[in-house]
Amino acid sequence: MTKIKLNCPVPLHYERIVMAHGGGGRLMQQLLDDVVQPIFNNPILAQKNDSAVLSINSPNIAFTTDSYVVKPLFFPGGDIGKLAVCGTLNDLAMSGAKPLYLTCSLILEEGFAIQDLRRLLMSMQETASAAGVSIVTGDTKVVEHGKADGLYINTAGVGILETKQTIHAQAIRPDDVIIINSDLGRHGLAVMLERDGFDFQHNIQSDCADVSSLVNDLVQANIKIHCLRDLTRGGLASTLIELATSAQVHMEIRQADLPIHDDVQSLCEILGFDPLYIANEGCFALIMPADNAEQALKIMRNHPLGKQANRIGTVMQTTERGMLTLKTEFGMSRVLDLLSGEQLPRIC
Amino acid sequence: MTKIKLNCPVPLHYERIVMAHGGGGRLMQQLLDDVVQPIFNNPILAQKNDSAVLSINSPNIAFTTDSYVVKPLFFPGGDIGKLAVCGTLNDLAMSGAKPLYLTCSLILEEGFAIQDLRRLLMSMQETASAAGVSIVTGDTKVVEHGKADGLYINTAGVGILETKQTIHAQAIRPDDVIIINSDLGRHGLAVMLERDGFDFQHNIQSDCADVSSLVNDLVQANIKIHCLRDLTRGGLASTLIELATSAQVHMEIRQADLPIHDDVQSLCEILGFDPLYIANEGCFALIMPADNAEQALKIMRNHPLGKQANRIGTVMQTTERGMLTLKTEFGMSRVLDLLSGEQLPRIC
Repeated sequence: MTKIKLNCPVPLHYERIVMAHGGGGRLMQQLLDDVVQPIFNNPILAQKNDSAVLSINSPNIAFTTDSYVVKPLFFPGGDIGKLAVCGTLNDLAMSGAKPLYLTCSLILEEGFAIQDLRRLLMSMQETASAAGVSIVTGDTKVVEHGKADGLYINTAGVGILETKQTIHAQAIRPDDVIIINSDLGRHGLAVMLERDGFDFQHNIQSDCADVSSLVNDLVQANIKIHCLRDLTRGGLASTLIELATSAQVHMEIRQADLPIHDDVQSLCEILGFDPLYIANEGCFALIMPADNAEQALKIMRNHPLGKQANRIGTVMQTTERGMLTLKTEFGMSRVLDLLSGEQLPRIC
Repeated sequence: MTKIKLNCPVPLHYERIVMAHGGGGRLMQQLLDDVVQPIFNNPILAQKNDSAVLSINSPNIAFTTDSYVVKPLFFPGGDIGKLAVCGTLNDLAMSGAKPLYLTCSLILEEGFAIQDLRRLLMSMQETASAAGVSIVTGDTKVVEHGKADGLYINTAGVGILETKQTIHAQAIRPDDVIIINSDLGRHGLAVMLERDGFDFQHNIQSDCADVSSLVNDLVQANIKIHCLRDLTRGGLASTLIELATSAQVHMEIRQADLPIHDDVQSLCEILGFDPLYIANEGCFALIMPADNAEQALKIMRNHPLGKQANRIGTVMQTTERGMLTLKTEFGMSRVLDLLSGEQLPRIC
């Protein structure tokens, strides 16, 4: 005789986000208890308090935030979840800090598939966990269908400064060298090629990665660092122009020394983009005194994210202020200027 | 002879947000330099680093975040800017922390009026500044027209714990008293009545306020506090049910002791809402041992945001677990349960 199962055969759960998932009632509790909590699983989050209470044994902390609106949500080499963790960890690393804790705040569009949400949160957790970082508090809002684009994620982060160096644009000096850790232009291009309407055969993956452990290697080796900056929106060129302007110096980069993947170079030529202005998500500039540069390059090339580390330019002795020039392979020099915006919108 | 003015009569500026304002290029720089920076004006933000570097003289910090998607953006008693600051300050205060620093991350819809953005940022700054808090770092993203609802704001906050008390749900004990600082239901109702389609004469203003200085008065007076929780999404009832569930206790609140504004009561009756489930933004529950309650009430009533402070309930000695009951004015007791969601969506 077959046993009759008395439990309800239709599970009372939702496959898509409804407004009530952001309403502070039973459905929001269920979403947090069944989806968010088990993935981010850690004791601080489990306390369900309005704030996470943290013990931090350092008087100097770094604090940052970014919202992520990349489109599409999944792209070769990553997704918005991985990006939302890497981006904020990298922002902390750029002040020389060791990241410790993150928040995760979601703006969900009504109708968004809970399966996709789960996949993105797992991607966040995997990336955070690999960095030794916990996602300790968060927030969930739901807006009507058509009032967002699937979901937007905000992360904020805190980290501690284990170095006494003050790493910022104002520390940049003439004769400093400019080093980058990897090749340029992959993230923006990978995201764009994933959008509707493009049908190219290519092997371009986003470089989306958490570089904080690479920066930590430099900090722990007491490398003298003047400035660190990740080459995200606006790419290498916009970032260096911004730094040259802040520091009131003239920087020169050498085309021959810029690592650019062949596929990126060819696609940029076909599509009319300049790889120097395309966003990266695992690439940063290190600006530092020349005498320590070889040691820094050695440390970087020993790290999986720094194998292509290269000196790409110099802070010049000229009297020009707030200027970036490119020395071409033919020995000519041309001024690089800020574009109005990013060549490709919504890439982070 | 009239002097001829040679400067351009048409100022080269935008009145509305365009995609390039989020693109990491010249227009984003202009938006930050001309609009954001002068309003939030402080030396940490002015450094334009990827992270804010902060000196914090306490090993125990509170860390929180919330995204704000309230609709409409302006409502009687506040706007999304004021709300985004108060909400996060209050979340910090609910762990007994003194708020110090905030972030501001904007998701702007293409076409959003820069004049409105300016007004909202000024509202944020005014509220933060009144609390002695600086907005030290942030982020700006722009999404296409139709992919957001004007703008969404995320704020994250850090504060320091100046008390050794551990203030959280797990500290709640039988015989504790439940106190609230002000009347219920104004925020949600004020927001809803401002939406299209409602045409009631009323005097209801949102209670949107930063209660951190009121909490600080209690902390400084060494009042023994078991738990603090702001009564936002889901209102008083959902918040207490959540706390009763976390602490595995039975709470009872007394209808006769609940401060509710006459206009709120009448409108709720007309519209079929229950004020116990409507969101507040300047109202919180304090759960504490009975012996100190009179002193706490005295301190609260001396603060502008605590004039209506009242004991509204008790943590019972019964064996019920995770339950909230309402003692009606006729002496009956009824169980209050979680709603599926908020009665009014998008109120914070």
